Amino acid sequence: MAGLCTQVGGRHGVGRHVHHPVVSRRSPPPHGFSPVDRVAPLTSKRKGNAMQVATELSYASFQTVYNVLSFALASMIFTALFLLISQGRVLPRYRNALVVSATVCGIAAYHYFRIFDSFRDAYIAGGAGQPLGADGLGGLTYALVAGDGFNEGYRYVDWLLTVPLLLFETIAVLALARSDARSLLNRLIPASVLMIVLGYPGEISSDVTAKLVWGTLSTIPFIYILYVLFAELSKSLDRQPAEVRGSVGRLRILLIATWGVYPISYLFPVLDSFGLAWFGGEESFVLRQVGYSIADVLAKCLYGLVIYKIARLKSFADSAEFAASEGEAPSSEKQAA
Amino acid sequence: MAGLCTQVGGRHGVGRHVHHPVVSRRSPPPHGFSPVDRVAPLTSKRKGNAMQVATELSYASFQTVYNVLSFALASMIFTALFLLISQGRVLPRYRNALVVSATVCGIAAYHYFRIFDSFRDAYIAGGAGQPLGADGLGGLTYALVAGDGFNEGYRYVDWLLTVPLLLFETIAVLALARSDARSLLNRLIPASVLMIVLGYPGEISSDVTAKLVWGTLSTIPFIYILYVLFAELSKSLDRQPAEVRGSVGRLRILLIATWGVYPISYLFPVLDSFGLAWFGGEESFVLRQVGYSIADVLAKCLYGLVIYKIARLKSFADSAEFAASEGEAPSSEKQAA
Repeated sequence: MAGLCTQVGGRHGVGRHVHHPVVSRRSPPPHGFSPVDRVAPLTSKRKGNAMQVATELSYASFQTVYNVLSFALASMIFTALFLLISQGRVLPRYRNALVVSATVCGIAAYHYFRIFDSFRDAYIAGGAGQPLGADGLGGLTYALVAGDGFNEGYRYVDWLLTVPLLLFETIAVLALARSDARSLLNRLIPASVLMIVLGYPGEISSDVTAKLVWGTLSTIPFIYILYVLFAELSKSLDRQPAEVRGSVGRLRILLIATWGVYPISYLFPVLDSFGLAWFGGEESFVLRQVGYSIADVLAKCLYGLVIYKIARLKSFADSAEFAASEGEAPSSEKQAA
Repeated sequence: MAGLCTQVGGRHGVGRHVHHPVVSRRSPPPHGFSPVDRVAPLTSKRKGNAMQVATELSYASFQTVYNVLSFALASMIFTALFLLISQGRVLPRYRNALVVSATVCGIAAYHYFRIFDSFRDAYIAGGAGQPLGADGLGGLTYALVAGDGFNEGYRYVDWLLTVPLLLFETIAVLALARSDARSLLNRLIPASVLMIVLGYPGEISSDVTAKLVWGTLSTIPFIYILYVLFAELSKSLDRQPAEVRGSVGRLRILLIATWGVYPISYLFPVLDSFGLAWFGGEESFVLRQVGYSIADVLAKCLYGLVIYKIARLKSFADSAEFAASEGEAPSSEKQAA
């Protein structure tokens, strides 16, 4: 009969949402099996574990990743809602930029939901379901188990959708002449799609050469995007109000600073393979998750709030009547950047 | 006893939301039973596996299908929301087209939720629930298990609802004279229903002759739809503004290009039965899922965004006042096509 329970369990995976904890506590495992005991130690060579998912996490590491993913999720949801609710506080011509910013945060929220669930379900606590000893929670270790795994692919799917939209909202909020906007978008959006698509084969490959080749290819459109944003876009900024030019400048700095996190993280497995074992270990896994999450919050939520601020400033500049109806002095604005 | 375990597990699927996970974690399989071992190898003859579902998937294949289904799901949800939120940005007479486009994306999002969950629950990782060794995730293989299976029938249900609506929104956004619109819809909608209904018996049949007969029957209304859209509809386009005619042209190209994916995929099992075993294998299964998902995203999300763009252009052409309130130059528009 033990075999029956076992099998059902194995199939069901390892979700952390325990809906009937009492049932579990009632009947402890017959042989006190701890899955962590059977985990092979981390080595710097882990063929096939291309996404560099740590096979074992301490309680502190597990909780850190858990909490930072939840932080990113909450930030995305409520920035999206704020931007949607605030549409009426800019002129109609700038609302599409806010809706697109909200869409970016919404898409990211969806993916953080998926990433969060995927992380929670990918690890199992040693001796799960058994009463804790004197060490309490701090003594727990978490092992990566066979199942769906911790799926980092969601991040690429997210970027594929959100990065072009981020560039779109950047152009949209400037309300440039139609031909200028179209010309910029026709270069920025294909370049951004190319950047994400070229990065993916390198991310999933366990071969260092492949990683470096795809990473280099992906860098080419990234540099082109920077060129368009800094060289080409500047020509279109002359007609913008002075305070808007300052905000757009900060927007571009924010973009470079946050997008720079992704290639750095991408290089971790490469550095690992060069013998820097730390880059393949538990700490670097945690650091990558924290880094990605913070970069995403800055690149999407803070970015969206700066877009909102620019839309407000431009609305006031365009219409004195609207400025007066909003109290004229935009001192109540969030100093997002 | 092991056989019984398998069956129970298969029944329950491998949902990640585990309601009694502790039971499962407590007692791992005593002999390290891996269901993958017992799965029959793929052959080019699999009687009854009419929907051509792969019986075994590598980690990379599993993740690719998983991610592409999630990508389609996210695209559908957020396009639906975007179209609903953006209603105010077109004149009232075009809002129904946006609402119907959003409905199409919403219905598709529902079905992708079902397909995603169905896929996730249909496969089980080798040694599911047990800690991974040093190979990590990359070494996993996934086996199709007895149970609900991977239900592709959802796709037909989806098309039965969304394809007539896609044709409806196409006619709705043109705001033709009522008699013209009614005449076009009276021909397009029954033809589209017939196309889907006639395709279904061929899809579920494991008999090649039946597949070819039903596939051919289904092609007749498809060709009739193309005839109506290209020959009949063109007569009604003369009164449309020039830029709208261009967008409608792109809309029809998009429709042919994306709808063409479905018959190609439909033929895969037929090609398999002709001895081209690749068409019944794992790679072709993955390619079909990726192809269907991308075709759906283009045929519904991108299509909906082009409908939105046409509605914007027509709103500006209809009302100079509305165009002015939107900043006149619709430079902030997404250049969807």
